[in-house]
Amino acid sequence: MKNIIIAHGGAPTAVINASLAGAIDEIKKSGFDGKIFAARYGSKGLFTGDFIDLTDTSDEEIARLIKTPGSAIGSSRFPLYDEEYEQIVDNLIKNNIGYLLFTGGNGSMDGLGKIYEHALKRNTTISCIGIPKTIDNDIKVTDHAPGFASAARFMAQTCRDCAQDVKGLPIHVVIVEAMGRNAGWLTASAALARNNKNDGPHLIYLPEVPFDEEQFLKDVKEMHEKYGGVLIVASEGIKDKNGDPVCKAKNSTSRSSYFGEVASYLATLVTEKLGIKARGEKPGIIGRCNSSCASEIDRKEAFLMGKTAAKAVLNGKNGFMAGIERISTEPYEIKPILIPIEDVMLVEAKLPNKYIAENGHDVTDEFVEWLRPLVGDLSDDISFLD
Amino acid sequence: MKNIIIAHGGAPTAVINASLAGAIDEIKKSGFDGKIFAARYGSKGLFTGDFIDLTDTSDEEIARLIKTPGSAIGSSRFPLYDEEYEQIVDNLIKNNIGYLLFTGGNGSMDGLGKIYEHALKRNTTISCIGIPKTIDNDIKVTDHAPGFASAARFMAQTCRDCAQDVKGLPIHVVIVEAMGRNAGWLTASAALARNNKNDGPHLIYLPEVPFDEEQFLKDVKEMHEKYGGVLIVASEGIKDKNGDPVCKAKNSTSRSSYFGEVASYLATLVTEKLGIKARGEKPGIIGRCNSSCASEIDRKEAFLMGKTAAKAVLNGKNGFMAGIERISTEPYEIKPILIPIEDVMLVEAKLPNKYIAENGHDVTDEFVEWLRPLVGDLSDDISFLD
Repeated sequence: MKNIIIAHGGAPTAVINASLAGAIDEIKKSGFDGKIFAARYGSKGLFTGDFIDLTDTSDEEIARLIKTPGSAIGSSRFPLYDEEYEQIVDNLIKNNIGYLLFTGGNGSMDGLGKIYEHALKRNTTISCIGIPKTIDNDIKVTDHAPGFASAARFMAQTCRDCAQDVKGLPIHVVIVEAMGRNAGWLTASAALARNNKNDGPHLIYLPEVPFDEEQFLKDVKEMHEKYGGVLIVASEGIKDKNGDPVCKAKNSTSRSSYFGEVASYLATLVTEKLGIKARGEKPGIIGRCNSSCASEIDRKEAFLMGKTAAKAVLNGKNGFMAGIERISTEPYEIKPILIPIEDVMLVEAKLPNKYIAENGHDVTDEFVEWLRPLVGDLSDDISFLD
Repeated sequence: MKNIIIAHGGAPTAVINASLAGAIDEIKKSGFDGKIFAARYGSKGLFTGDFIDLTDTSDEEIARLIKTPGSAIGSSRFPLYDEEYEQIVDNLIKNNIGYLLFTGGNGSMDGLGKIYEHALKRNTTISCIGIPKTIDNDIKVTDHAPGFASAARFMAQTCRDCAQDVKGLPIHVVIVEAMGRNAGWLTASAALARNNKNDGPHLIYLPEVPFDEEQFLKDVKEMHEKYGGVLIVASEGIKDKNGDPVCKAKNSTSRSSYFGEVASYLATLVTEKLGIKARGEKPGIIGRCNSSCASEIDRKEAFLMGKTAAKAVLNGKNGFMAGIERISTEPYEIKPILIPIEDVMLVEAKLPNKYIAENGHDVTDEFVEWLRPLVGDLSDDISFLD
């Protein structure tokens, strides 16, 4: 009897463990009689052979896993070299692994695809299936990926609360920074914060639209004259017309750096050029791992993707990623599908033009309609100011 | 028949409207037959005579108000001059106001105290009662003030989620910035994120403890060697041994500026001096107005403070602030009290020494015990890494 192993890749989300829970649940219910392993810290565990035995995971643990943010088995985000894939396949063979599930974004799917290719070359029978995961929603083909809806709900709910704060104390311009370096899905999600057309966010700056400082200052001035308090959302990855980041990478080490500090940069710009009090807020990883704002649909779909992938891999499917096909938006209905892994390896899905408003600093109604069922209802509010 | 007016002062919180709801509820139930007004944008509305008529607020609106973050009637944060108080008293007399409720922190209580003094001098009968409100928890005498527990719950839950994120992907030092320029209550609240002694936050830097850069780097290095991923919480107002802010005020305009960017500053320091990848997160006003993390106890107590103040003012009490006296921590029990306004005007309650750990970068068990009932249970989690 062969064993199965599950690995996580890249940054965790609020619901990556729900996919793990779904996979374990499906494997246990299938009557599978091999061992269920997890790779400790993702590809690192696969490479070093550091496996966690999850065969005896209880139903109570599965229920708690569904609500636990972050990666309960650990993850990593370092790309592997060719000879490292050989070592991984060696470890899988040595541990009698017949099935590999890998949860991650387009980078992780690239890694999974390479393990799949190396295993094929070695004539072994390790079935490989991917489970989509990303807060940036930049995986191709699938309608959306688990992790995104919860991060989107955080942006929407957070911006609704901040808009209410700014409306009641209209003394400044507040800029909230959104994650998603190249894809604006998460930044765009802030639009769901609005109940009425005058509600914040009043301006939304996406990485897909070239950022023009002069136009930005003009827009901010106009909104400030109109509303007093202004709420702005900007992607950490906004770029100028030459494609250069508005904010350079900082805190670089030999292996990586991080973008961001865009909100702070823009706030200083507003104060220096317009003389208006401004502050930048940067939730950062607070937004990607936030369990209080997790979307119920997202948790369910993450669980479903884990189950779908586990079912497929145990049925001998190989070289696919589980995905979501949207059947209908109203009422919301989806079905799980399998996508050939080569269609999603290292390609990025950006926010399409149909979802970007003509003025370049907002989204379209079509986007809001598409996103609303994923985020669910936000809290109700009231204001006597209008 | 006299009328009553309610005003908000200073930064809004997640539950300031719950106090407004409690006051309106109490006034309506008392059989009061005057008008119930709100001052639009706090002292600004009192000064200009811009009042909102809330006499017909429905029970459904009261129920929604309780859950609405920010200030539904508007607030302001500008101190008033002496002649402006005269104008306010004029407006109150002109509108036949016999009762004034003012919700705010120690600055607002100072304003209320001055209105009270000006009214006394004019031999008018405007009864003035304060309702405590602050996320910083720096109001004296009262055990704690509404607004704090919800902001504390945001810090605790957010840091628990971030700690889980960092533990599962231990590739960096993450520094979360907490509000509270001079008082460390909110920064300290992050300690409630821990389930076990190795859980983050691993280091907590309070504004009450002089910050030593060399010691900080030594502590971070030690924690990084021990845990890989390190979670740190730092107050926006940490100061060096001379009392100078570690980060200078920025984005100053003629009337105000804001502190902060401490997390970003410390992250850069960690990377430059220790060569460790680091990032700073700054939730800022996201933390003070967050409705998803609002504490149920906080909402109830905010409502109770509104009711207590309204009851007192209608009974002819004058020159007090409603407050909370803690009867017992386990089980949690409090009672509403009235505190002479002069005891809370412009004095700051800092985190006392008994709540600060000897090493200077943590809190004591006594603090955690004191805070736990206010914050309530956090979400459960699980990790297979240990």
